[in-house]
Amino acid sequence: MPLAPLGSINREAGIEAALRVWKAALGEAHVLCEPLALAAASATTFETSQRVLTILRPADRGEVQECVRIANRFRVPLYPISTGRNWGYGSRVPANDGVLLDLGRLDRILHYDERLAYVTVEPGVTQRQLHEFLLARGSKLWMDATGASPDCSIIGNTLERGFGHTPMGDHAGSACNMEVVLPTGEVIETGFGSFASSRVGAVGRAGAGPSIDGLFVQSNLGVVTRMSVWLMPAPEHFEAFFFVARRTDQLGGIVEALRPLRLDGTLRSVMHIGNDYKVLAGLQQFPWEETGGRTPLDRETMGRIRGRLGIGFWNGSGGLYGSRAQVREARRRVRRALRGKVDRLQFVDDRMFQLLRRFAGPAGWITGWDIKRTLAVLKPVYGLLRGVPTTAPMASAYWRKRTPVPAQPDPDRDRCGLLWCSPVLPLTGPDAVRVTSIAEQILLEHGFEPQTSLSLATDRSAIGVITIGYDRDTPGDDARALACYRRLTADLTSSGYPPYRLNVASMDLLARDGAVEAALRALRNALDPNGVIAPGRYQPTGPLAQTERLRSGVA
Amino acid sequence: MPLAPLGSINREAGIEAALRVWKAALGEAHVLCEPLALAAASATTFETSQRVLTILRPADRGEVQECVRIANRFRVPLYPISTGRNWGYGSRVPANDGVLLDLGRLDRILHYDERLAYVTVEPGVTQRQLHEFLLARGSKLWMDATGASPDCSIIGNTLERGFGHTPMGDHAGSACNMEVVLPTGEVIETGFGSFASSRVGAVGRAGAGPSIDGLFVQSNLGVVTRMSVWLMPAPEHFEAFFFVARRTDQLGGIVEALRPLRLDGTLRSVMHIGNDYKVLAGLQQFPWEETGGRTPLDRETMGRIRGRLGIGFWNGSGGLYGSRAQVREARRRVRRALRGKVDRLQFVDDRMFQLLRRFAGPAGWITGWDIKRTLAVLKPVYGLLRGVPTTAPMASAYWRKRTPVPAQPDPDRDRCGLLWCSPVLPLTGPDAVRVTSIAEQILLEHGFEPQTSLSLATDRSAIGVITIGYDRDTPGDDARALACYRRLTADLTSSGYPPYRLNVASMDLLARDGAVEAALRALRNALDPNGVIAPGRYQPTGPLAQTERLRSGVA
Repeated sequence: MPLAPLGSINREAGIEAALRVWKAALGEAHVLCEPLALAAASATTFETSQRVLTILRPADRGEVQECVRIANRFRVPLYPISTGRNWGYGSRVPANDGVLLDLGRLDRILHYDERLAYVTVEPGVTQRQLHEFLLARGSKLWMDATGASPDCSIIGNTLERGFGHTPMGDHAGSACNMEVVLPTGEVIETGFGSFASSRVGAVGRAGAGPSIDGLFVQSNLGVVTRMSVWLMPAPEHFEAFFFVARRTDQLGGIVEALRPLRLDGTLRSVMHIGNDYKVLAGLQQFPWEETGGRTPLDRETMGRIRGRLGIGFWNGSGGLYGSRAQVREARRRVRRALRGKVDRLQFVDDRMFQLLRRFAGPAGWITGWDIKRTLAVLKPVYGLLRGVPTTAPMASAYWRKRTPVPAQPDPDRDRCGLLWCSPVLPLTGPDAVRVTSIAEQILLEHGFEPQTSLSLATDRSAIGVITIGYDRDTPGDDARALACYRRLTADLTSSGYPPYRLNVASMDLLARDGAVEAALRALRNALDPNGVIAPGRYQPTGPLAQTERLRSGVA
Repeated sequence: MPLAPLGSINREAGIEAALRVWKAALGEAHVLCEPLALAAASATTFETSQRVLTILRPADRGEVQECVRIANRFRVPLYPISTGRNWGYGSRVPANDGVLLDLGRLDRILHYDERLAYVTVEPGVTQRQLHEFLLARGSKLWMDATGASPDCSIIGNTLERGFGHTPMGDHAGSACNMEVVLPTGEVIETGFGSFASSRVGAVGRAGAGPSIDGLFVQSNLGVVTRMSVWLMPAPEHFEAFFFVARRTDQLGGIVEALRPLRLDGTLRSVMHIGNDYKVLAGLQQFPWEETGGRTPLDRETMGRIRGRLGIGFWNGSGGLYGSRAQVREARRRVRRALRGKVDRLQFVDDRMFQLLRRFAGPAGWITGWDIKRTLAVLKPVYGLLRGVPTTAPMASAYWRKRTPVPAQPDPDRDRCGLLWCSPVLPLTGPDAVRVTSIAEQILLEHGFEPQTSLSLATDRSAIGVITIGYDRDTPGDDARALACYRRLTADLTSSGYPPYRLNVASMDLLARDGAVEAALRALRNALDPNGVIAPGRYQPTGPLAQTERLRSGVA
C-alpha cells in the first residue's frame, strides 16, 4: 500500500530534518537555501504561486540516488530539473511547492560514436556544450537544436518532448537508453541497456519485452540521469528554403501542398510556418510609437507593418539535406508543390547566404524586402536548420517590454510575460486553418497579439506554437494572459486539438479520460509509493477507476 | 496488495466454473473445448509442454472485456492471440498452461484515411485482408508486409515488434493509438486518443504526459483490441535492388558501405542480407540425395550448390522509393557504395521485372544465373518490397521435411521444426561478422544449417534472423534444436547482442537486470493484480528489488 501522502505529516519539520541529511550527503555548498536564490528559482514568465523550498545540486548519479532516498525517508517531494530553462512552460518552477533537484552539475558527455552517430549525455549537458564538443572534435555529425537557448539542457528538452528543425527534430523520437533513478532510489536502464554487456543500448530503442522509455517523458516516474541522443551525419549538401504568402487564406493550400512531401520523404525535417505577428516579434519589440501605446497590435496596423517590412502573412522555413542531386530534386519538388500557393520562395545555400550577407547593407537585393531585417531573422533560422544553437529567438520574449532587450537575456529575471500554448493537429489544410483561426480570435479578444506558428513535427501531424507575449509589469496582464491561455487550451482541446505540452500552472488542463488517469496513477503508486518525485507534474486528479479499486481490494 | 497467485487455488474447479460463465457470455459456439482443437492450438514448430485449456472467441471489445472480468473473478489466466501465426516463436502456444483468448473474430478495418495515410484495424485483420481492402478501394497507399504469411495479424505482428521491408518496415514504430482492455477489464486508449474528441489520436504517437504505448508491446499488461497503422503513399517510382557477394569475408565491407546510406536517408527501408543457406532454404528443400541423407549440409557441399545455382555467400535485397530522379540518385549512391564490395548488383523496376519473367524460360539472361530459380526467390521479395503479402517464404519451414511442401502449408500441423533466434547488433561490419560467425559455428556444431540473415532494421542497428530448421519427426531433433537455440541466444546475449524477441519456451532467457525486472513486476502488479493476462509472457523471474520492498512496506 502507498504510504501516507505528504499532506498528512509535518512538512516543515520533515524538510528541516531532510536538509541536515542532504547537507551531509552533498556538502553545504550544494544545498541552496538563500532566499534570493529560492525566489529567483520560483520566478517564471507567468504568474505562479509555487515556492521552491531548497535547491539540491548533486554531483553525480550516486548523489542523485542519495537525494531521492533521503526524500523517501522524510517524505519530501523533489522536483528534478536539468538546467531549468523550460521557457514559456515554467522555467524551473515546480508543479507544487517543493525542493528542486538541480541536475546541472551532471554535465558530462559520456560517450560519442562518430560512426554510429550518437552521443550519450547527462542532464546538465547544454546545446552549446554539445555543439562545441562536436566542433572541437572535427566531427562530421550535426546535432539538432531548438531555438530556446544554447544553455538549454538536451535531456531537459527531450523529456518535455521539445523539437527542433533538422531531420532529428523529434527529440524524444531520436533518443534512447535512458538511465533512470527510480523514485525509490534504484537505478535502471531502459531498452537494450538493461541487458548486461549489451552493445546495442544506444543504437536501438525497443529492448525486449515492454518498452518503458515513454514512461519517463513528461512524467514524474523517475529522474533521468543519462540518455543517448542520435545525431545526423552532416549532409554533402544543405539548402534552406524560405517562403512568404501574403494572404491569410493561403495557409490551407500550403499545408496541403507540403504534406505529400513529408509523407514521401522529400521533406525529412521539421518545417516551420509562422504568421506575421510571430515574425515581427522576432524582428523587433512592440511598436509602441506607431500604435500610440495601444495594445493589442490590431490587424490593420499589423498589415501596414507587414507591407513595409516585406514579411508575409505566412512565412515558412525548411531545410533540404542530401547529396547535391538529392537536394536539387527535393528543391524541384518543393518548388512545384508550392507553385501558385506562395508569393515568394527562396532557396538559400551556404554560398548564397554569404552573398546575401555581403549585399545586405548597400542595396537590398530584392525590391520590397528589407534585407537587413530579413537577414536578422534568417540567420539564426538558417543556423537552426543546420543544428546550430542560437540566442536570437530569446529576444522575442521581450516583445512587450518597454526596455530594450539586454545583452544577457533572462526572461524570468526581467519579468517578461511568455506563455506557449501548443496544440497538436492533423497535417491538413482545414485543421491548420481552424487552429490558427481559433488562436487569432481568442488572443485578440484577450488583448494579445496572436503570434502563431505551425511546426510540421511528424509526417501526419503538426504542432501549433501560439505565443502569449506580454509584460509582467503591466498590471492585470498576468491574470489576463493566464485566462487567455486556459481558454485557448480548453477550446482547442474540445475542438480536437489537445496540447502536446503543458505549463506548470496548468496541469489540470490535461483532460485525458478517467480510465487512463487511473491506470497512470496505478503506475505512479507502483513506482513512487511515497509520492516523492514531482507530484502534480503532468498529473491531474480524477475519479477512482476499476484498476485502483481492484488494486486496493475494494472490487 | 496483489491477490493470491493462480497456483494457490483450485485451478481446475476455477476453470470449470469460469467456463460456464464464459459460455453464457459468448455463446457455446465460441468457447472451444474439443480435444482436437485444443491439441492443435498447443502445437507449434518446436517442443513445448504448455497446454491450451480452452479457446475463447469473443466477437467484439465488449466481449473481450467480459472475458477478462470473468478471468479475474475465477483467477484463470488468459493468453490473448490475434490470429496466432507467431511462426518460429510459438504460434498460438501460451507461455504457460492457460486459456486462449482468440481475437480472430475482431476483424474489422474501422477507419481508413487516404490523405493522412493510415488505417485503424482490429487484431483479427490480416495482411491479406488489408492488402485486398486497399486494392478494392483503388488506394494509392502501400502497406508494409512481413514474409510470414498473408494470414498473419497486423496487430499480432506489431505487438511482437515484427518488421517488414518497406520504409514502414518497423511495425511498432509505425503504429499508435492503441485501444487496450486492461487486465481489470477497463478500456483505455493510448496517446492523444485518451483526450475526448481528439482529432489526432492516429496521426501523432506521443500524447501529453507519459507515453504508455510501449507497455503493451511484447508484454502481458493488457489486451490490444484496436490500433492505427501508418501506411506509405505509393511512390512515383519504385526499384528493387539485389546483390550477390561470393565470398564469406565480404559481409563486413557491405555493412560498412550501407550504413551511411541508411543514416543519410538514401535507404529508407529495411534491407535484408541473407547467407547461402538461407537463400537455398527459400529455393528448395534439403538436398537429401546429394548429401546421401547426411545432415547438416556441410560447407563444402553448400559451396558446390552455391556455384551451381549462382547464389552468393551473401545475398542482399532492398528497395528504392521516390520520384524517378530520387530513385535514380539513390541508385547511383547504392552503386557507388557497393562498388568493389559485391560481385553483382542488379536494379529491377517493374518493366525489367516483367522482361525477366518473359525470358526466364528460354535463355537465362545472365550467364551463370539460374534465372528461373532466381525469379522464384526474387518474385516474392520484389512483392514484399512493395508491401505485397506472400505465402512463398512459408515453404522454407519445410526445409528438412522429407515430404514435399503441401499446397496449404501449416508448419504447426505438419511438424515442421522452426526456431528463430534474433539478436540485435550495432550496424557495423565487425558486429555483423561476429554475430554471423557465432551463429554459423553453433548451428553447425549442433547439426543444423546456419540459415542466417541480417535485416537493417534501423539507421543504427540490425537484427539477425537465424533459422534453426529441422524436422520434428526426426527423433532427438526437438531437444537438439532447443538446446542449440538456447546456447546461441545465451552466447549472443553475453557477447553483447540480446534478442529482440523470444519464443514461448524461452522467456527465461530474457536476461534483463534485476532492477528493471523489479520495476516491470511492480508495473505488472499495479495493472494486473490477479495476474490474469498471459503470466510468463516476456516475464522471467528475478530477485526482489528495492521498489518492491518499499511498495510492500518492507523498507
